Amino acid sequence: MTDRRAQIGLVGRQVSRRSMLAGAAVSVVAPAAATTLGAAPVAAAQGNGQGNPNDGETRRITMYAEVLPSGLVGYGLAPGKATVPGPILEIWEGDTLEIELVNNTDKRLSIHPHGVDYSVDSDGSPLNASFNEPGETRTYVWRTRAPVKAKGNIWIPGSAGYWHYHDHAMGGSHGTEGLRKGLYGALIVRRKGDILPDRQFTVVFNDMTINNKVAPDVPMLDCRLGERVEFVAIGHGNTFHTFHLHAHRWANNRTGMLEGPNDPSQVVDNRDLNPGDSFGFQVIAGEGVGPGVWMYHCHVQFHSDGGMAGIFLVRNEDGSLPDGAQAALDRYHQHDGGHPNGG
Amino acid sequence: MTDRRAQIGLVGRQVSRRSMLAGAAVSVVAPAAATTLGAAPVAAAQGNGQGNPNDGETRRITMYAEVLPSGLVGYGLAPGKATVPGPILEIWEGDTLEIELVNNTDKRLSIHPHGVDYSVDSDGSPLNASFNEPGETRTYVWRTRAPVKAKGNIWIPGSAGYWHYHDHAMGGSHGTEGLRKGLYGALIVRRKGDILPDRQFTVVFNDMTINNKVAPDVPMLDCRLGERVEFVAIGHGNTFHTFHLHAHRWANNRTGMLEGPNDPSQVVDNRDLNPGDSFGFQVIAGEGVGPGVWMYHCHVQFHSDGGMAGIFLVRNEDGSLPDGAQAALDRYHQHDGGHPNGG
Amino acid sequence: MTDRRAQIGLVGRQVSRRSMLAGAAVSVVAPAAATTLGAAPVAAAQGNGQGNPNDGETRRITMYAEVLPSGLVGYGLAPGKATVPGPILEIWEGDTLEIELVNNTDKRLSIHPHGVDYSVDSDGSPLNASFNEPGETRTYVWRTRAPVKAKGNIWIPGSAGYWHYHDHAMGGSHGTEGLRKGLYGALIVRRKGDILPDRQFTVVFNDMTINNKVAPDVPMLDCRLGERVEFVAIGHGNTFHTFHLHAHRWANNRTGMLEGPNDPSQVVDNRDLNPGDSFGFQVIAGEGVGPGVWMYHCHVQFHSDGGMAGIFLVRNEDGSLPDGAQAALDRYHQHDGGHPNGG
Repeated sequence: MTDRRAQIGLVGRQVSRRSMLAGAAVSVVAPAAATTLGAAPVAAAQGNGQGNPNDGETRRITMYAEVLPSGLVGYGLAPGKATVPGPILEIWEGDTLEIELVNNTDKRLSIHPHGVDYSVDSDGSPLNASFNEPGETRTYVWRTRAPVKAKGNIWIPGSAGYWHYHDHAMGGSHGTEGLRKGLYGALIVRRKGDILPDRQFTVVFNDMTINNKVAPDVPMLDCRLGERVEFVAIGHGNTFHTFHLHAHRWANNRTGMLEGPNDPSQVVDNRDLNPGDSFGFQVIAGEGVGPGVWMYHCHVQFHSDGGMAGIFLVRNEDGSLPDGAQAALDRYHQHDGGHPNGG
Repeated sequence: MTDRRAQIGLVGRQVSRRSMLAGAAVSVVAPAAATTLGAAPVAAAQGNGQGNPNDGETRRITMYAEVLPSGLVGYGLAPGKATVPGPILEIWEGDTLEIELVNNTDKRLSIHPHGVDYSVDSDGSPLNASFNEPGETRTYVWRTRAPVKAKGNIWIPGSAGYWHYHDHAMGGSHGTEGLRKGLYGALIVRRKGDILPDRQFTVVFNDMTINNKVAPDVPMLDCRLGERVEFVAIGHGNTFHTFHLHAHRWANNRTGMLEGPNDPSQVVDNRDLNPGDSFGFQVIAGEGVGPGVWMYHCHVQFHSDGGMAGIFLVRNEDGSLPDGAQAALDRYHQHDGGHPNGG
Repeated sequence: MTDRRAQIGLVGRQVSRRSMLAGAAVSVVAPAAATTLGAAPVAAAQGNGQGNPNDGETRRITMYAEVLPSGLVGYGLAPGKATVPGPILEIWEGDTLEIELVNNTDKRLSIHPHGVDYSVDSDGSPLNASFNEPGETRTYVWRTRAPVKAKGNIWIPGSAGYWHYHDHAMGGSHGTEGLRKGLYGALIVRRKGDILPDRQFTVVFNDMTINNKVAPDVPMLDCRLGERVEFVAIGHGNTFHTFHLHAHRWANNRTGMLEGPNDPSQVVDNRDLNPGDSFGFQVIAGEGVGPGVWMYHCHVQFHSDGGMAGIFLVRNEDGSLPDGAQAALDRYHQHDGGHPNGG
């Protein structure tokens, strides 16, 4: 497994909570373990349903922005471990996250979050002189809070959501160069009681790429039948997209699930994914449809034809490939079935 | 009426449940009658409110993909009856739909659904070798299910929704040629208790066209004051659009209506309609605004100016034209009032 | 303050309810006072929570469409007072608004609303011969209504929403020239019990501009820490955008707030804002993040780099500038920090 994943560029892109809990394959998923900040989410994942036992903790991490051998630029949780996208950062609503950002590049850059609270000095924008000069280390502080009751029956929204973070300073005042080169990642703020997934994937539609790759090099999302898989989808760049996942659907709301049988949320399997936007959802892999090689792709025709298409591989429960899967994977890698010249 | 509808390309595009129930004008709405799969939706439409009496039925149809005289390619429910868009397929949540697809063209093609459950062999994609070769017949199976309770108070979404189906194999791995030529249609999965409409219209924004037509040839949506009219709006192709309907609004959620006075859904009369996306809603024709010649159009200015504009004709209750309507229709057909050079 | 605001083009773009109630600075906010139609919203703002004491009133105003010295064309509530965007029109759900529109230009034009009810003669479209010839005065009538219970537990949506109005007749059948030149504005229909804001701002993404301006001339949104600030965001023209506000978030639903702790609405700080679309929300300025110079901008990179970026200035409670704010404002005005060549 390890070799195969490495070959298709998965290292650092896939988080296996199961593996982590079981203590297996840690070398493969090292970034994942590091991105689960503190024990709380894991505890909730174990199903006690009691929410965050560490209410309002302050968590501290160091991130490193570095140039990758490919020329891309990524964030990582240890020197030499930068990836595109960066690690999934995950906290509880109520927590504070302090990020010491080390700029190991020769250009100014920053880290700017969506959805959370920050003062102007953590804005990450040149407008507020909030960035790292080349070689500089700087701390950014992100705070979160639960919903609060306002007047009448109205509540002010909390911080929980599938958010993201990105550079806001390289190559201009809006981080256009940093974004183009890969300085982005997922940020999840969970609410007490939220169900935790078994696996997580970050999918970024960045101009005409997925995670700065095109088919057949787009990350394969690899899981097993019945696992609870969480997607965080993020849009960046200059072009507009629609994210489509085959054979799985979700509610177009905060969690992707419903609050009850009368929840009015629209259920979708295709959603706009435009610059600066993000959403997330969980599916039970293969539920009602079985294992298989399922496509996820931009539904704009010339985008998918141009390579904005990847594979959501749902293996059998024992990890083996289902019937026909290898042939489908071969088609994808041979540009036959996943590309305009295919088939 | 029949001649007039035929002249503006409505045959097969308009479903009259009232006519169907009354036994009138059946020849005009033949595809519509065929697309109501089984008696259940009709029964519910009669207001017993008891939902689907045929819980979890398996329904079987045969569809034919054929080249039309215009050079477009459509799906139909009988040989020689293909239309663009294809027929509205409508089932209850819990039902299974088996589609025997006959490929009467000389190119490979398939049928790929959104929103429902299917195994890899019904995926409709070349990736999964799931398509019809020229002349070939192949069966695709779509399953549906109701929402189910998960942990805590969370529910997993069901299949109910305003979905769609389309080719995923002609002219490449994503069906780009098939979509461009018209291989698409609406798929409605209803939940027990959903209110059934009197009339239904499918509106597809496909690149710079509506249902592969431009004004003044865009389908006229023809109804009477007070009828419950259902729109299914679908996006395809490479361009981004916004669907706007004059003088009528709907909730931006699963049904277009509200679950109660505190339902938080935004009410809209303009919505993004981008490739692969779909939504639906019901309005009471002319409610609060009266009969008339109402525009529906893409709200992107150069798209509407370029012909992405059609007519939602709300007649008087007795079927006659309201005051001023004929003059407005004449303006539309003379490119005066519906086009950039008009007026 | 007055001079400063005038200098940055704020006159007529900012509504201060606090100032209005206090009787101060009336000359600055004259258009604002006029746009609060009747006493009802103010009464509700004072917190009696009893909703509209003037249920179903008919309100009458006169609007003037005029060419501005800049060559733009705007709507105003008095001769010589036209602005781009036009005044915020605000009514209670249930009210009727009669607008006598005076066309003081030499081209045909109209006023077409979103979200409310109108007969074909108030459609504002050339299709329905509903427009003002040059120099002509014409009355348009907009009606609104509360949600009503339909069958079962389903409710038909009411008129409440963050809507907008615009020309539909200048330069073609869809008002493309009128929109390009500035004939647009916000229309708010409030529901009984809705919380009223302290300040309101209209932000229109119109092609590659914000309110037909680019940085550093984009309107500065000026408020004080703790004020309840309402944004109405509107899209127009031919291009697609995403609206992003730094350090503040809202629920993506009718009000931007939640109906309760289990409201499923997604919370966002970035939202698609495409032609014909509109949404609104309220934030408590600086809540959880403090005062400061906060950016709002299109998140499409070449749009923000090209000047679709403005300032949401949250002053200290006493109206003074917080630390560092003047330097940030200077950066913005010197194209340093707000522009691609900046910083």
